[in-house]
Amino acid sequence: MARIRELGSVGRLADGSLSRLAGTDADRAGRDLLGGWMRAAGLAVTVDAVGNMFGHRGAFEASPAPVMLGSHIDSVVNAGIYDGSYGVLAALEVVECLHASGAALSRPVVVAAFTNEEGVRFTPDMMGSLVYAGGFALDDALAAVASDDGRTLGAELERIGYAGAVRPGAVRPHAYLELHIEQGPILEREGVDIGAVQNLQGISWQRLVVDGKANHAGTTPMALRSDAGYAAARLATFLHDYAGRPGSTTVGTVGTLRLEPNAINIIPGRATLTVDLRDPDEARLVEAEAALAAFLPPLAADARVRIATERLVRLDPVTFDEGLVGHIEAAARDLGLRVRRMTSGAGHDAQMMARVCPSAMIFVPSEEGVSHSPRERTSEAHLAAGANVLLAVAGRLAGA
Amino acid sequence: MARIRELGSVGRLADGSLSRLAGTDADRAGRDLLGGWMRAAGLAVTVDAVGNMFGHRGAFEASPAPVMLGSHIDSVVNAGIYDGSYGVLAALEVVECLHASGAALSRPVVVAAFTNEEGVRFTPDMMGSLVYAGGFALDDALAAVASDDGRTLGAELERIGYAGAVRPGAVRPHAYLELHIEQGPILEREGVDIGAVQNLQGISWQRLVVDGKANHAGTTPMALRSDAGYAAARLATFLHDYAGRPGSTTVGTVGTLRLEPNAINIIPGRATLTVDLRDPDEARLVEAEAALAAFLPPLAADARVRIATERLVRLDPVTFDEGLVGHIEAAARDLGLRVRRMTSGAGHDAQMMARVCPSAMIFVPSEEGVSHSPRERTSEAHLAAGANVLLAVAGRLAGA
Repeated sequence: MARIRELGSVGRLADGSLSRLAGTDADRAGRDLLGGWMRAAGLAVTVDAVGNMFGHRGAFEASPAPVMLGSHIDSVVNAGIYDGSYGVLAALEVVECLHASGAALSRPVVVAAFTNEEGVRFTPDMMGSLVYAGGFALDDALAAVASDDGRTLGAELERIGYAGAVRPGAVRPHAYLELHIEQGPILEREGVDIGAVQNLQGISWQRLVVDGKANHAGTTPMALRSDAGYAAARLATFLHDYAGRPGSTTVGTVGTLRLEPNAINIIPGRATLTVDLRDPDEARLVEAEAALAAFLPPLAADARVRIATERLVRLDPVTFDEGLVGHIEAAARDLGLRVRRMTSGAGHDAQMMARVCPSAMIFVPSEEGVSHSPRERTSEAHLAAGANVLLAVAGRLAGA
Repeated sequence: MARIRELGSVGRLADGSLSRLAGTDADRAGRDLLGGWMRAAGLAVTVDAVGNMFGHRGAFEASPAPVMLGSHIDSVVNAGIYDGSYGVLAALEVVECLHASGAALSRPVVVAAFTNEEGVRFTPDMMGSLVYAGGFALDDALAAVASDDGRTLGAELERIGYAGAVRPGAVRPHAYLELHIEQGPILEREGVDIGAVQNLQGISWQRLVVDGKANHAGTTPMALRSDAGYAAARLATFLHDYAGRPGSTTVGTVGTLRLEPNAINIIPGRATLTVDLRDPDEARLVEAEAALAAFLPPLAADARVRIATERLVRLDPVTFDEGLVGHIEAAARDLGLRVRRMTSGAGHDAQMMARVCPSAMIFVPSEEGVSHSPRERTSEAHLAAGANVLLAVAGRLAGA
């Protein structure tokens, strides 16, 4: 708990808000703190070429393959203190416990902190684990340009001293486990302590640009308008109602919308908006994308606008390892905790690691479902419960 | 035509765009140019305490009451060259013609350029004519604070040398005529040369703030969302469809909309939008406001949001003087021009002057209905036709 609070104080701005974006001085300070704690726990620290940090006892590339426990310590802007950091620091605590117990381990247990999970400064998100899993070229990751100051990730990692020499993905773990706050309301609402995450939603992000015609709001008859804002509103309404229909497993969000010229007395000539669609089932995600695509041509004709779409992100749903999910459920029950299987609505490094080794996640409740906010909170009892489940499963996998 | 182009070159920025906002150095340069032309035409220039400029022969406060012809020379940001300036410069041309003709006038004809019609830098718009008509206190107008640099209109008028001594409204005209581009598509679409403007829509502006709850777009089930953007979209759709129903004379526009936090993967927690409602009939405008107000509570309940409304502007519809409108129609027909009666959708100084004297407006076509844009355009033939109608009506009223 003290470490979570201490790491949560790194990257505080003058206004008291927390921002520890990848590749910044705050990221360096957070990494320095984490590395110090790893070394104090008797671990060696290895940094790979994309900046992923690993704390391990003995050689990093050794056999048998290690159990890897991890998450990330970069944050969003105006962040809470649990998202990511909780998983890394609980992993460190678990390794310390396992070593302190004196039990002989049949496999090493490695603590991982992946670079740029949040994707705020550099695109794409989950970058470090994606490179680790071979899904994104190292050179492309290092050439990624910061949205705020135009520097590259490679230059920033060099600058802050976290451009390592080890090839990302050099170690293929026996299993990967990630402990994380839920970032949603389900566990709290149902009074459940532990989520055994069995799969992860597929994600489809698109940008839509609606081109109408800016004109005077007083003098242009309704029948002669090409109101881009109206078309965007129809689209947002359709999306919400489509995803919200009874029995739907899809969630759909228009999170950003910009009108131009955005003047009270001018009909919007252009609307730029984003669509976030998610579903744990690939076929239903494709169906939702198709429903949106089919809605656009008649809308464009009816509202006398043009609509262009651009795909921003597309991630298939991920199914986690059934054996690991079963271990998590069993460990939680053994500890007297209420547990349920669930789907992750958010993206996590575990979905990338699932490409290279059996992986699963453990969720603990988020109060009011809030995350990416200073109001992000999980009770100490739930934080401890999650760490105990991680300890039990990791110990079992490592033959403790 | 040359004067329109020359005045249109005053206030050009480095990027080639035109901005001649009230009380700026560009406004001073435009006023200096206009005043020079007035004097060259043998007119005296009088400036009143709110900066309204008048070009007149003989004493300003004389009898019989003058025929006043005018508009404004301030502009919006990134403006065209016709809105306002056309009406002032055509009025000057008309006075020159009347004087040059040698005809004895039974009434003087005054050219007016009202301060801050556009209302970009200082609120409210149509300020100079509103003060002139006694609808807004002079002291309040002079204390109005610039949206860009916080200076007051009074200080800016002093600075640019256009804070006059004459009491606004000292002269009550026999009649007021304003020639203006339509700023809408009707005349062009119908192939009509001249609009005899018989009334002006009432205007109702509101700001609405929708408060929902920002949450993760992936992890928050649709049924648990309080999506402020969705509620705003429903509202914008309702407004457009209400105004667009068959037989409606109301126009409705959501011109501005801002989502917070405006992130692709976060459900909007707040949406701030504006509603612009207009109708030439007061009862129907009230009906439209009531329909919107009635739509909000069930929407708020259904979308689990709170909606607050704030009235920004409310102007009753204005009916122009029937006799003047008839003169305009007759003059246009006599000149062989196609003419129709019409409603102004935009606000104009004439609506303020209608409070103190018989008033009417003459419209000429706007290509594609565009205004408040560098693409604003009216053919030279139509500009000349409008000026000739103004000349005919002004001459008739002045007893030429």
